[in-house]
Amino acid sequence: MNDPSQHETRATLLVTCEDRPGLVAALSQALYAQGSNILDADQHTDPEAGKFFQRIHFDDPELAGPDRDGATRRLEATVRGVAAQYEMKWALHYANTPTRMALFVSKTDHCLYDLLLRHRSGELHCEIPLIVSNHETLRPVAEHFGVPFRVFPVTADTKAQVEAEEIALLDAERIDLIVMARYMQILSGEFCDHFESRVINIHHSFLPAFAGGRPYHQAFGRGVKLVGATAHYATSDLDEGPIIAQDVIPVSHRDAPADLVRRGRDVERTVLSRAVRAHLEHRIAVYDNKTVVF
Amino acid sequence: MNDPSQHETRATLLVTCEDRPGLVAALSQALYAQGSNILDADQHTDPEAGKFFQRIHFDDPELAGPDRDGATRRLEATVRGVAAQYEMKWALHYANTPTRMALFVSKTDHCLYDLLLRHRSGELHCEIPLIVSNHETLRPVAEHFGVPFRVFPVTADTKAQVEAEEIALLDAERIDLIVMARYMQILSGEFCDHFESRVINIHHSFLPAFAGGRPYHQAFGRGVKLVGATAHYATSDLDEGPIIAQDVIPVSHRDAPADLVRRGRDVERTVLSRAVRAHLEHRIAVYDNKTVVF
Amino acid sequence: MNDPSQHETRATLLVTCEDRPGLVAALSQALYAQGSNILDADQHTDPEAGKFFQRIHFDDPELAGPDRDGATRRLEATVRGVAAQYEMKWALHYANTPTRMALFVSKTDHCLYDLLLRHRSGELHCEIPLIVSNHETLRPVAEHFGVPFRVFPVTADTKAQVEAEEIALLDAERIDLIVMARYMQILSGEFCDHFESRVINIHHSFLPAFAGGRPYHQAFGRGVKLVGATAHYATSDLDEGPIIAQDVIPVSHRDAPADLVRRGRDVERTVLSRAVRAHLEHRIAVYDNKTVVF
Amino acid sequence: MNDPSQHETRATLLVTCEDRPGLVAALSQALYAQGSNILDADQHTDPEAGKFFQRIHFDDPELAGPDRDGATRRLEATVRGVAAQYEMKWALHYANTPTRMALFVSKTDHCLYDLLLRHRSGELHCEIPLIVSNHETLRPVAEHFGVPFRVFPVTADTKAQVEAEEIALLDAERIDLIVMARYMQILSGEFCDHFESRVINIHHSFLPAFAGGRPYHQAFGRGVKLVGATAHYATSDLDEGPIIAQDVIPVSHRDAPADLVRRGRDVERTVLSRAVRAHLEHRIAVYDNKTVVF
Repeated sequence: MNDPSQHETRATLLVTCEDRPGLVAALSQALYAQGSNILDADQHTDPEAGKFFQRIHFDDPELAGPDRDGATRRLEATVRGVAAQYEMKWALHYANTPTRMALFVSKTDHCLYDLLLRHRSGELHCEIPLIVSNHETLRPVAEHFGVPFRVFPVTADTKAQVEAEEIALLDAERIDLIVMARYMQILSGEFCDHFESRVINIHHSFLPAFAGGRPYHQAFGRGVKLVGATAHYATSDLDEGPIIAQDVIPVSHRDAPADLVRRGRDVERTVLSRAVRAHLEHRIAVYDNKTVVF
Repeated sequence: MNDPSQHETRATLLVTCEDRPGLVAALSQALYAQGSNILDADQHTDPEAGKFFQRIHFDDPELAGPDRDGATRRLEATVRGVAAQYEMKWALHYANTPTRMALFVSKTDHCLYDLLLRHRSGELHCEIPLIVSNHETLRPVAEHFGVPFRVFPVTADTKAQVEAEEIALLDAERIDLIVMARYMQILSGEFCDHFESRVINIHHSFLPAFAGGRPYHQAFGRGVKLVGATAHYATSDLDEGPIIAQDVIPVSHRDAPADLVRRGRDVERTVLSRAVRAHLEHRIAVYDNKTVVF
Repeated sequence: MNDPSQHETRATLLVTCEDRPGLVAALSQALYAQGSNILDADQHTDPEAGKFFQRIHFDDPELAGPDRDGATRRLEATVRGVAAQYEMKWALHYANTPTRMALFVSKTDHCLYDLLLRHRSGELHCEIPLIVSNHETLRPVAEHFGVPFRVFPVTADTKAQVEAEEIALLDAERIDLIVMARYMQILSGEFCDHFESRVINIHHSFLPAFAGGRPYHQAFGRGVKLVGATAHYATSDLDEGPIIAQDVIPVSHRDAPADLVRRGRDVERTVLSRAVRAHLEHRIAVYDNKTVVF
Repeated sequence: MNDPSQHETRATLLVTCEDRPGLVAALSQALYAQGSNILDADQHTDPEAGKFFQRIHFDDPELAGPDRDGATRRLEATVRGVAAQYEMKWALHYANTPTRMALFVSKTDHCLYDLLLRHRSGELHCEIPLIVSNHETLRPVAEHFGVPFRVFPVTADTKAQVEAEEIALLDAERIDLIVMARYMQILSGEFCDHFESRVINIHHSFLPAFAGGRPYHQAFGRGVKLVGATAHYATSDLDEGPIIAQDVIPVSHRDAPADLVRRGRDVERTVLSRAVRAHLEHRIAVYDNKTVVF
């Protein structure tokens, strides 16, 4: 594979704990002692919250060796040891086990094409085994890219039942990440909780401005000179989840709501893909309804 | 003068009326017929509101000739004639009569320096006969640039009386435009009405997000990935006036509120100066609590 | 059609001549007198070159009436009259006769998808009757969008002959605009002259920096902190034609040449589509190897 | 002091060496073992050049304790030990010993004001004991900010002699960093070598485009749609030194060279201050005529 961060000897460790001296030294020493070489390490301390966060991207030749399972066990034991000592929460991600990402769409295609094209060009290190929609509209796009397409029509009455079926399918497909690529249904709190910090939504405004429906029309009404987009983890509070990425573009008095919709498409797909990429590279830690994006 | 838009033969006409055919032809023909040459014309039609807006920047050699007053009268009669026929609101601004701008400040100096430096370098076509403050702090800055500095301490009890004195002073100084360059007092509705569409404020957030006090702290609390600034005309509804200019800069989890304040200074001064320049070039029309910025 | 600028009663007039007083009045008066209503007019004077440029977007109900040909003749006679008086070069474009655009591609797909998707979503007012390539690679994309795909393999020996065949095909298809959407062949001076100011190329650097081959590798070598893209009209001087649009994105020491290629794709497609849209809206005038983009 | 990165217990270590496994662990372990706590660590490996770079910002309480000199000696011995083992080049910077920065100016004031204002507001952690100029013009600015101002008139004949006097003064003042804030003289190769990687220049174009004189006029001539600024370390090859920071702003056909100069001022001061801040925070490593900016 071209992108060296995807070599099968690579892994990423994400760690969170209460801040205290010696954390960086302890983790780097433990990884080194068992044969791993740190390629990239980044940490953050929130002094007010007293929280420590670290992302370590490292290389361990034995992850691609004859006893790969043994190497994994040894690595996890090492991390578990340090984590126990410092009461860390941690997660290990192996480059040879790509994230399995499902896309949820309705009728709008620009974010769907964008993610599928980036995936095909090698920008997104993941598998896309599934596209879910509440409409048939985008099936030809899924077929063009050779991705299975499943339609679940939703009505107010069937919503709970449909979501249960979707969850069953997503779990059966071992989906790690759900991306709402302009999916025009509100997910229930139960759904969001089931996939906590694993559902990314794109909202077509610079949140917290213009939360809720028809944000471009709200923006037009207020006469703003920029419109934006916000990618965030979906939570039971609509449009209130932890923000991952945001961007804006300039608009003027010449832009009618339809122009804002058109211009907004560019920033929506840019922002969504940036958030998805950060997630797939295991760069995001969530706390206090905010994100650290390494 | 270097900037040709400031030549003494130049003038700017701003016009608003109900949209109807022939407006562009009528205005350009009338100006041409009486000896003016159009240098730059821009118009906008809001099809929903049915409104027409035009800005015409033109050259009339007689404005710098021996009978300047006669030329002005003739020009105004011409415009008045077309305006009467089409029920236009209009305003004529002559480059040889620069806008008189007063700056209101408190203790923060970055916007004040920025405007004074831009003025001295010739970027802002105006006179600055007066700086008003509720504190002594920035007097040395005013003295460095040779601008009279007047202090009006304000308390809740004295506010009405102080504003009356300020209005008297501003009127005596024939002030056309007031710029609140981080002035930390809320102007009353009476004050704003007295100087309708002539008071520009800079709010340190991307409105309508984070209206009200301490916007950088609000932004930090929400975990946004951009912070912004908004220049708008002050109205009796705090932070709700017509927006003139906005911009944002990226921030990250590494930025504490103090960092947002620091980073925000750059975008505040950029946005405020852009709005002030647009006003001084007579590029702004206000309607429906929005702006057209030609 | 949704976009009102594409209504069949709309037309756009582009005019260039030596600067002199009364041009705006003459054109607007002539159009008004024969029944057209100006919706949007923009002009520019280059004082050093002494050149005047104007773009007028107007509405003429008779262009959609029963005698459309008569209306067109009358309109052209009107413009020809003013143009003769003032020695203007002019072009009239009717919204009911969309530009016919051919796309030239090689193996890279991101600009091709981008333009086809924007076209399908209604962003680009044109017809796309033809995609030309020197490789078979992108045929499935053309088929997905239902656009005829013609392959012309090129070698150094056959180049002149192949270009002659391409020109014959393009002329037979009445192609108005050719967009080189990452077409990896250098067009001859003869080809560029045949389609003067009608071939748009995207160069993957901020010209004039890094003209020529492998610009991202050049940029990496110099250690720049931004990489860019430039859309320009192709001329016989490679990478020296009139620039239409440019943009950049930040990069850092972490970006290897492969990362610059990846990041660059986003700015390439944005810049190219912006230039194509400006051309299709008849916003571009060319002079002195530069562009006016209204 | 407000900014915690300036606490007197803080220090920054910058390290460069050939890449090999275990470097991160060795450095973090050594610092931890002698009582330092890592607050922020960032590293970079250039796989092609085989080079490793690290910046570690850490806290050592004894640096503010009763035996500060002993703490410094102990810290340096620790680093020297690891460095010897891995053949590292290294530099330690203590927050309680701020960089001494001299500003070189001519007649243009916007970059000078910008740096002095940022310094006064606490954005730049340094001392400014000296402003050097070849003209008297900006003395009032220096006086307004209370900074000594020294004038060295330069002619072609006296240049070598004047530079020798300047170097003597700068050395006597123990100047660590020289910032050419629009200083309109070319420094000799000898001068640049004497202060290698310690002279920051701002060039008013997006290098490598428009190197040399009058870059805004060059940009106007080429008809570019963006103008930029580049901050770089000065070397004996004019405009060819390692680039630290760059940015651009959009321009259009409406902008005459004088407008480019005006618009460029904003981006010049932003880019220069960003580069200066990065240097003062010891974020920059130089190699192969490029920079790593952590």
